[in-house]
Parts: sequence; C-alpha cells; structure tokens
Amino acid sequence: MSRFTPSFIFDLDGTLIDSVYQHVLAWHDALRTVGIDLAVWRIHRRIGMSGGLFTNMLLRETGAELSDATVEELPRLHAEAYLKRSESVRPLPGAEDLLTHLTEQGIPWAIATSGRIKTAQHAIEMLGINPDNQIVITRDVVTHAKPDPDLFLAAADRLEIDPSHAIVVGDSIWDILAGRRAGSLSVGLLSGGYGQDELERAGAYRVYQDPEDLLRHVDEVGGR
Amino acid sequence: MSRFTPSFIFDLDGTLIDSVYQHVLAWHDALRTVGIDLAVWRIHRRIGMSGGLFTNMLLRETGAELSDATVEELPRLHAEAYLKRSESVRPLPGAEDLLTHLTEQGIPWAIATSGRIKTAQHAIEMLGINPDNQIVITRDVVTHAKPDPDLFLAAADRLEIDPSHAIVVGDSIWDILAGRRAGSLSVGLLSGGYGQDELERAGAYRVYQDPEDLLRHVDEVGGR
Repeated sequence: MSRFTPSFIFDLDGTLIDSVYQHVLAWHDALRTVGIDLAVWRIHRRIGMSGGLFTNMLLRETGAELSDATVEELPRLHAEAYLKRSESVRPLPGAEDLLTHLTEQGIPWAIATSGRIKTAQHAIEMLGINPDNQIVITRDVVTHAKPDPDLFLAAADRLEIDPSHAIVVGDSIWDILAGRRAGSLSVGLLSGGYGQDELERAGAYRVYQDPEDLLRHVDEVGGR
Repeated sequence: MSRFTPSFIFDLDGTLIDSVYQHVLAWHDALRTVGIDLAVWRIHRRIGMSGGLFTNMLLRETGAELSDATVEELPRLHAEAYLKRSESVRPLPGAEDLLTHLTEQGIPWAIATSGRIKTAQHAIEMLGINPDNQIVITRDVVTHAKPDPDLFLAAADRLEIDPSHAIVVGDSIWDILAGRRAGSLSVGLLSGGYGQDELERAGAYRVYQDPEDLLRHVDEVGGR
C-alpha cells in the first residue's frame, strides 16, 4: 500500500445507520424527564457533538440549572429512551455495500463515533461488522469527542496512516469540523437531516445524499 | 384598517407547534407497516406537502408498488402513529406570545395547514385558539394542499385581504413555495429542522429561528 493510499473514517449515526431522528426524540424525552423543554430542531443540530458540550449548550441556551447528579443521569435517560425506539433503526441505503466495496478494493476504513460502545454495539452488529476485525473507535477511548479531532486521530492512528490521507465522512457539522481539525478531508452526507449548505459552510469538500450516493461517486473523493 | 395593512398567515406544524419530528417518525412507522423502508431524512424533507404528492414521491423514489387500498390506509396509519407520540408535542417558544401580540396590535392573522382538522385540533387547542373566533384553514376545505397556493388563498379570502398583502410564515420549502405562488411574501422559520439556505433558496424573504425570534423582529416583515 502506497503511503498516499487514501483511507476512510466514518461517523456512525446518520452516516452509516439511520438513527439520528430516534436519537433526537430520545434526547427530547430525557430532557423533559428532568424538566427541560428544548425545541426538537435545536437538539437535532447538536446531535453528534460531545455529551459534555451538549450539556453546556443546554444550560446556556435554556438558562436551566441542573444539579451535578441530574447532569450525570442524562446519558442514562437518553440511552433508555433511545433503546425504546431502536427497533425502527436500519442501516442507511448503501452502507453495507460501501464498506464491502472499500474492503474489496483494499481501501482501509474505520468507524469513529461520539457514542459509547453500549449504544453503538447494536448499530455495529446491524452493519454486520465484527469489531475484532475492524477498527471501531468510540467515545470510551478518547478524552474529547467531536468537534475535537481526537476520535478521528485515534482512528488514523489505528489505521497507521497520516490523518491528512484520511477522508472523514459524516452527516453533522461536528464531524466536518472535527475532520478538518484532524487535518483530513471532510465529506458530508445529507442522511442525518442537515442541509447541504450547512455542511458545505462547515467545510465539507463534497456532499452526497447517503452512503449509496457516496459509493456511486467514490472516485470523486479518492476511492476507486 | 388601511387596505395595505399586512396580515399574517401561519403554517401550523413546525411553525407554531413543535411536532415535525414526531410526524416524521410517525410516517416512518406507517410506511414500515406497509413494507416500505424509506430513510427518515427523506421523509423529513417532504413533511408539510400534500399527502397525495407525498405518496406519488414515495412510489417514485422507492419503486414500491402499493395497492389503492394500501395508499388509502396510509393516512390512518400515520395518524395513529402520530397520536402515540403527540404527548411530547409542545407549542414552539413564543408561538402564543406572537399570536397575542398580533391580535393586540390589530394585525389580522390566520392559520393554514396541510393537515386535516382531526390531527390539527389538538395543536390548535394547545395554542389556546378558539376556531370559532379565529380563522383556521385545513386540508379538508381545499382541493390541493401545499405547495399549491389554495390553502393560503383560502386564508386570504377569509381574512378579506389581497394575498399580496399577506405574510406567509412557514418552516418548510412547501410553505415558502405555496406562499410565493399565492403572491404573498414568504418568511421562513428554522424550527421545523430545514437549514436556512434551503428556505432562502426556496424564496424566503427572511428566515428566523422560531416564533419567538420572529416576534422580536416582527417590524422587519411588516408587523409592528
């Protein structure tokens, strides 16, 4: 493999599996449980960022005051509310085909998600990925999640590549921003519900509809 | 009232009440029930358009073949799935204050929704609106819903105004398009989850975050 062979690093929710809207309403439920009413679209635009930053944003935008115990309980409340909805979650069109194609072409790839292994496990199984054979970086192994670059840097490290030869693929502006901060090329997908312009303004080199559309144009971003 | 006094015509879901994401996942459920797997973001971008056009789009994009009986059953399946989620639906921030402000300023307003009265009733009550005193146009009274202009034209007719003196407020590109076709000025809100650029490209004169943000800037669009 030439040292200039590109590698792909994928976000998970909204990029490979169709789970963003379920996560959004699960956060809406969790927040209502602790007495916070936040409009759903505002939650949508924060999905995929680090939980700590998400909580800071909440406290700032709602003016709510939450005890440390409540702040610590929120991830559990969210996970419970998400699991109730996860039955409707499916891989996005083309996700499995895209990963299979890259593997067959000898193009290395990894997954890097702001989620914890506990919630990501179900999604990874759904994609038919064996974490023993594939690189899956979760929130559990880094200090800072997106938009910090740590998750993508950890993935590049495990892929044994320079991050500047990685193509980061994500559906949220937090992915695009973290990809840029890692020194990688960022590619956006519309399948998480952001608008094309939002992803382009955040710095996406290209924007595709979903994994199927990316697979169809993979030679435009360094694949083959 | 001068014949140049502006009037406001509001969409309902995503514009005055925070119900878009629940509607999106309710459609996702209804479609899965009849064997159609459509990515959630694609449903999101079609919410607010006429049910007939929505079904045509479905058949085209998924290549699915549905019997007439199934097509007729979809609205009921959606309504059932929505009602299960409606407990979490709230007015958007500032919605009631905005309507109260317009009433106090003597600025006429109406609501025009692609939904049917059966599903809209709950939202209207939540906003404290008495349909006997206020103009509420639903899908039941027009032949074509958005993006056709019929709903907004019917509202203008009931307001006894020329549609060119109406300011149409909506969260989806279908509202913006229908408002333009009615000859009105269209204003977009981000509270339904579209990006600002999507609404501007569809022809929104201005885009605000939600009803609260519109109220704060109502003098920019003809209010006072």
